[in-house]
Amino acid sequence: MKLGRLNHVGIAVPDMDAAIAHWRESAGATLTTPPFEMPEQGVLVCFMDTAEGAAQMELLSPLDKTSPITSFLARNPLGGQHHMCFEVPDIEAARTNFEAQGKRILGPTRIGAHGTPIFFVHPKDMGGILTEIMETPGDV
Amino acid sequence: MKLGRLNHVGIAVPDMDAAIAHWRESAGATLTTPPFEMPEQGVLVCFMDTAEGAAQMELLSPLDKTSPITSFLARNPLGGQHHMCFEVPDIEAARTNFEAQGKRILGPTRIGAHGTPIFFVHPKDMGGILTEIMETPGDV
Repeated sequence: MKLGRLNHVGIAVPDMDAAIAHWRESAGATLTTPPFEMPEQGVLVCFMDTAEGAAQMELLSPLDKTSPITSFLARNPLGGQHHMCFEVPDIEAARTNFEAQGKRILGPTRIGAHGTPIFFVHPKDMGGILTEIMETPGDV
Repeated sequence: MKLGRLNHVGIAVPDMDAAIAHWRESAGATLTTPPFEMPEQGVLVCFMDTAEGAAQMELLSPLDKTSPITSFLARNPLGGQHHMCFEVPDIEAARTNFEAQGKRILGPTRIGAHGTPIFFVHPKDMGGILTEIMETPGDV
């Protein structure tokens, strides 16, 4: 399986506004996608970067207590690195390949925060890293 | 403070050879810098990437029980995301700036795995993320 570039690092944050301010002040990061809700994933999400074309930071805060970010923050109250996301040209081919490797895929393929199909692979099958696979957005 | 691009994500691994094989097989990653020891940091380190010019994976395994990676692996036996590293054009200007922000810097500025000066900022001052700042290598 050949994955493409690291698209972003998912970062859990306890307070979205404070996190955006932190990344602006400490890293000079630019807010490339303002916060929006993804209710089906239980998260408020935004994207920031420090350089155009570089891997982004995807900030994630929980919408409610059932969010996967809620349990992460219970273990890591300050927040921290939550997942890594790699691009692929064809999401279904990637899913078939990970399944053939016997890796556990978490739920159905669905539309992710960049508007293209994504799925997650279990950290226990990926060296402890929750791994998101996303189809590369077209025309970019 | 304006940081540059995300250079790499540091990833703690319990077994370097197994981790390189995992990243080759699961992600089609290329070993761009074969493993070498950094005794002063207590780590065996290599770099891999999935796309030229993209952020890299820096795999880190402990050289001994005093390594910072040893304690990380005690908490995370499978390994996982350990730090994020951003480039800056001038390491001393960056250090002065982080100090002026009141952020705790961990130890002296030293030569990092890419051969340029680096320092680490405390995760408690960086939203739970151990943050490495590295001077961009010249002529690349």
